[in-house]
Amino acid sequence: MQTQDLYPSRTGHQTRCLERQDPVIHQHYRDGAPLSKAQLQQYNREGYLLLPNLFGRAEVSRMLQTLEQMQQDSDLMASERAISEPGSGALRSVFQVHLHNDLCRRVAADPRITDIARFILNDELYIHQSRLNFKPGFNGREFYWHSDFETWHVEDGMPRMRALSASILLTDNTLFNGSLMVMPGSHRTYISCAGETPEHYYRDSLKQQTVGTPDNHSLARLHQRHGIRSTAAPAGSVLLFDCNLMHGSSSNISPQPRSNLFFVYNAVSNRCVKPYSPCPPRPEFLATRDSFEVLECSAEPPAREVG
Amino acid sequence: MQTQDLYPSRTGHQTRCLERQDPVIHQHYRDGAPLSKAQLQQYNREGYLLLPNLFGRAEVSRMLQTLEQMQQDSDLMASERAISEPGSGALRSVFQVHLHNDLCRRVAADPRITDIARFILNDELYIHQSRLNFKPGFNGREFYWHSDFETWHVEDGMPRMRALSASILLTDNTLFNGSLMVMPGSHRTYISCAGETPEHYYRDSLKQQTVGTPDNHSLARLHQRHGIRSTAAPAGSVLLFDCNLMHGSSSNISPQPRSNLFFVYNAVSNRCVKPYSPCPPRPEFLATRDSFEVLECSAEPPAREVG
Repeated sequence: MQTQDLYPSRTGHQTRCLERQDPVIHQHYRDGAPLSKAQLQQYNREGYLLLPNLFGRAEVSRMLQTLEQMQQDSDLMASERAISEPGSGALRSVFQVHLHNDLCRRVAADPRITDIARFILNDELYIHQSRLNFKPGFNGREFYWHSDFETWHVEDGMPRMRALSASILLTDNTLFNGSLMVMPGSHRTYISCAGETPEHYYRDSLKQQTVGTPDNHSLARLHQRHGIRSTAAPAGSVLLFDCNLMHGSSSNISPQPRSNLFFVYNAVSNRCVKPYSPCPPRPEFLATRDSFEVLECSAEPPAREVG
Repeated sequence: MQTQDLYPSRTGHQTRCLERQDPVIHQHYRDGAPLSKAQLQQYNREGYLLLPNLFGRAEVSRMLQTLEQMQQDSDLMASERAISEPGSGALRSVFQVHLHNDLCRRVAADPRITDIARFILNDELYIHQSRLNFKPGFNGREFYWHSDFETWHVEDGMPRMRALSASILLTDNTLFNGSLMVMPGSHRTYISCAGETPEHYYRDSLKQQTVGTPDNHSLARLHQRHGIRSTAAPAGSVLLFDCNLMHGSSSNISPQPRSNLFFVYNAVSNRCVKPYSPCPPRPEFLATRDSFEVLECSAEPPAREVG
């Protein structure tokens, strides 16, 4: 029997706005914290933080090479871990990269990110999901507004809001190539969505999500309260954002592709249980269960750029 | 027999970049011009000019009411002048509004716009095309990159680059609701497109243009040379842009609709002839022929906002 569901959603009823039941930052500021007090306050208030140029050019260049290799790997492209654009068939995402690629595994455990995630979540970490996102130039598709947590909770069984995402920008994310738009402060409100989850829904939802998306009325309310902000930043920057932040992105008709490497850090104490819905859990490549592995604090210094 | 075609396109060959053969501003600056010298230089250099808050709130409000009335007019919605979104069926554009609506007719002839257009084109004016554009919130579709002139030349028979568009912003056009993106300076290059025009192509192209759009290589070149700029501005502002400026817009997932009233002013000396293609000309609601009427210089002062 599941413990009480603090964040019910897709129970067939109307959309409701519920108050967040969990802290955003799970410990108080102290000397030696990996972010300044102002940065932590900003993350707490707005639900996200942009860290410009955290990775150097040479590092980004290696990650981009890895992306290109993946695009040319026909076995990978044929696997369920590779998601293509509806219509064009172009590559959109490759999942579970932290398990299948050495460079991605190292970046996932890079202390420049994990020290911050550990501090904010105040716990040991594991990777709940990892992916390379590729939004091509000229015809990159939009991602509609959503809170990641709603899906992770309902479909994956993540109990509480004690997870965050790190998006490492591999290309310049501009105002014109479909960079992430966020509603700052929206992470304090949980939108309990109407509708029920169809079986094996993830196969469609990875291409276009229809269930688990907030209705127009709730989005308009959130927008009125919080507005929208762009997270455009140069390649090498890292965007950290709370698991319940409302975000989305427009289409990309600019000639510049938008590629990001994306890791979801979950607190070990917040490990997924049975999904909060009648459906079976999503497959391992979307939500870690069997491959659970606590990220070790690296003894080595991070592989910083040389020269 | 058509005179020599200075701007051939869709002749089945590969895409080519041709140099513009016409001036952008068709006379020199003089005292009493309706724009400053700096403004004219900017328009000449960049191919567009944003005039913030040219219309007042009450005026914009009346135009928006007109748009709402049109949306509720079932006869109009069923007519060929009303174009709906592919998929949702939501209203996207209503054409020929300057002939069918009194308010739109008055705005089309408003000297705050026509004095400028007359100066830039150095000729008497007529309306080549007019429309109300409505990009709804949440699911507004993108418009892909294009030069208007390419279509007006090939499909409507507009001989030379001596026309401009005025877009009157009826809602705030923000960075997030699919406001127009332009490539400043791109109006100096004519992209002669590959492919041929299918018969009755306009019926599809109004929903999604596939022929007469520049290829990726040319767009990437233009982008490298000119970059992209947003034309976001508050409601009541007017965007003037040259007929050959490369422009497009992303999708709109924000809750705020983006609505614009749009007039194309052509020089009387540049009246349309036979299309520069084997196809019959597009219908009157898309390109003025029979309803040709020189815009009179208004003797009355413009209907400015009171109070």
